Amino acid sequence: MFMKNLAVAQSGGPTAAINATLCGVIAEAAASGKIGRILGALHGIDGVIAGKFADLSGLAGNERDMKLLRQTPATALGSCRKKLPNLTSGGDEKVYADIFTNLAKENIGAFLYIGGNDSMDTVAKLTEYGKMISTGIKFIGVPKTIDNDLSGTDHTPGFGSAVKYLCTTVQEICRDSNVYDIESVTVIEIMGRDSGWLTASCSLLPERCGGKPQLIYLPEKTFYIEKFLSDVRSLHKSGEKTVIAAVSEGLRDEAGRYAAGRSLSGKRDVFGHEYLAGLGKYIEQEVTDKIGCKVRSIELNVCQRCSASLASKTDLDEAAGAGAAAVRAYLSGETGVMAAMERVSSEPYRIRYVTVPVSDVANKIKTFPKEWIIPAGNGIEKAAAEYFRPLIQGEENLICEDGLPLQITI
Amino acid sequence: MFMKNLAVAQSGGPTAAINATLCGVIAEAAASGKIGRILGALHGIDGVIAGKFADLSGLAGNERDMKLLRQTPATALGSCRKKLPNLTSGGDEKVYADIFTNLAKENIGAFLYIGGNDSMDTVAKLTEYGKMISTGIKFIGVPKTIDNDLSGTDHTPGFGSAVKYLCTTVQEICRDSNVYDIESVTVIEIMGRDSGWLTASCSLLPERCGGKPQLIYLPEKTFYIEKFLSDVRSLHKSGEKTVIAAVSEGLRDEAGRYAAGRSLSGKRDVFGHEYLAGLGKYIEQEVTDKIGCKVRSIELNVCQRCSASLASKTDLDEAAGAGAAAVRAYLSGETGVMAAMERVSSEPYRIRYVTVPVSDVANKIKTFPKEWIIPAGNGIEKAAAEYFRPLIQGEENLICEDGLPLQITI
Repeated sequence: MFMKNLAVAQSGGPTAAINATLCGVIAEAAASGKIGRILGALHGIDGVIAGKFADLSGLAGNERDMKLLRQTPATALGSCRKKLPNLTSGGDEKVYADIFTNLAKENIGAFLYIGGNDSMDTVAKLTEYGKMISTGIKFIGVPKTIDNDLSGTDHTPGFGSAVKYLCTTVQEICRDSNVYDIESVTVIEIMGRDSGWLTASCSLLPERCGGKPQLIYLPEKTFYIEKFLSDVRSLHKSGEKTVIAAVSEGLRDEAGRYAAGRSLSGKRDVFGHEYLAGLGKYIEQEVTDKIGCKVRSIELNVCQRCSASLASKTDLDEAAGAGAAAVRAYLSGETGVMAAMERVSSEPYRIRYVTVPVSDVANKIKTFPKEWIIPAGNGIEKAAAEYFRPLIQGEENLICEDGLPLQITI
Repeated sequence: MFMKNLAVAQSGGPTAAINATLCGVIAEAAASGKIGRILGALHGIDGVIAGKFADLSGLAGNERDMKLLRQTPATALGSCRKKLPNLTSGGDEKVYADIFTNLAKENIGAFLYIGGNDSMDTVAKLTEYGKMISTGIKFIGVPKTIDNDLSGTDHTPGFGSAVKYLCTTVQEICRDSNVYDIESVTVIEIMGRDSGWLTASCSLLPERCGGKPQLIYLPEKTFYIEKFLSDVRSLHKSGEKTVIAAVSEGLRDEAGRYAAGRSLSGKRDVFGHEYLAGLGKYIEQEVTDKIGCKVRSIELNVCQRCSASLASKTDLDEAAGAGAAAVRAYLSGETGVMAAMERVSSEPYRIRYVTVPVSDVANKIKTFPKEWIIPAGNGIEKAAAEYFRPLIQGEENLICEDGLPLQITI
């Protein structure tokens, strides 16, 4: 029997676990005995459009390379940010023709796309187009995002490692902030434009270790700077000299504008550009102006999504599991679905892999549950810890050389 | 025999290794059998002035607590930023009277001060004052700073862990920056106001792992923004789409002003305050204006000095060794000295502990050797790697609970 090949690609922002998913795809495809070559499209769907593929089949039998791939952060195959044109728009459909021509040329049986909202939109459109032209090629999505804002899955691969990085780092920043015996404010700006999952996870930090953020603000609630300042004043008044606030970059004011945007007004450089200050810098300035104590802001930035050195073993295992589940879904004849995780129980922690129609996932955002935000709007209910805790368990044993983690380049 | 007690304190900015030094002091003092109680002054010299001490003697016999102290970042005893008045200034010397009264009250035989330049200044002044009043109390400094800018020692405890954090993180950021197939610039702003040791250490990154900073700028050389932009253009032209630059926060222009200060001019908020943009943001704006490609800046911030989770085992071992060496210096009758490290050889790596007069160290800054900067001023000579490499070897095995490193609170 002449076996079909498998194509896989990665898309959107990097995570620490997206290459573990690639490992899962490669291992499961090789083990099935039902798949020919495994081809990685370079730079997401752009690689399919341009016909740029790397043959990954050889990795399957190389245990060390597979381990290195698993511990390498960001997309080993490269990434892209591309939205395919709507099929109903009557627009240019050449891009679809290119994709299907190149998939056929490589004798592809299924295209697996590892990504977030936008990637699931791509999977949905390719499935639809494929039906229109009656191709047999299957399209399967595999979830990936540190934001955890994908519908249809209990959580997303990549999120657990981001939480582990975040909690580990914030715990260290809290120690750093607590060394001086003076009133101060530390503002930690955390990723999440539309949902507060990542910021909320800071609530997991134990009381035991000298300091955790006393204030947490998510984009799911309107942010009032005056309320923030009053929260800080209350804590100082109660004797807590060091106030630490975790804020989501996506906080919005009562008019629905990004709170960080307030700092833009009137400030332009010599070329007339508006100055792009971040939310943390904005709040820092407000504290300086209105409270006047020592204050600093810390923007955690891309390390949140690429810190493989602090990855969660549970997350990497699950990410690989999702990749394997996608391969099994293809082999059982499914298409237009995303491999997802369903939580069977939190204690003991158990998940199972399922598939959900990708059209139920694409372009939707799963926000943080409002019932897990305390009524005052500046903290997280203890109940959320049961959800977060299992996701950060276990440390990955990294292969190091000369004191630094080894990575692989494809 | 009625044994004298030992006082120890920590000062200045936190590091990941300063508590390992405390462990070294405690273990050596307890093992000597020649020291009574071990007292930790809270918040540096302020704790001595106010008579605030914690009894650390009980830690010596508790292996688990000592391990937790070793893996806890930042100053477990708290810190301060205080410069004692000059003895020759004829100013208020009440502070000295308070210090010596409180040390005598606690029956202190020696005061060990773990810190950087300013702390060595304190040790020098206390030694001098002690001679004036003919006290028998000994004063010993123990080096600590992530900046590695202390004279008299091959390198400083805390630096190796900062380098390991930095190289690990920058390696991950390089992966993250390389995923898209477009021209871009990533600017990484690294701590170091007066010396470029930390920024220069990025040059240690191996070529093997898909990306390292192609451009490195230290405060030891004048920074010309036009030269920077031309360096970026050259790399883009030569086909390197992703340009990554490591810049020290302390870069200065030809007039000796902080380069970041340029971004202040003319920009004020609604209250009339000058906007405090960082160096990275300034360079980011310049790239946007003059080159126009995708650009982002990343300020690594305090994680550089408090990331115990990525600590160097070599650094922690040496930090503990320096603490122990300081205790031995006291017991052999020394005063007014700093425990220091002398490099015996780089390969195989071997150091030995020595003492140097603290007056030779105080208020001096050891800058990065100019002969290790390449003639073009935008990179580091390969010879520097031999110096850096041994300092980041070995990973600390952290005690974790529920997925996060445990810390201790004193």
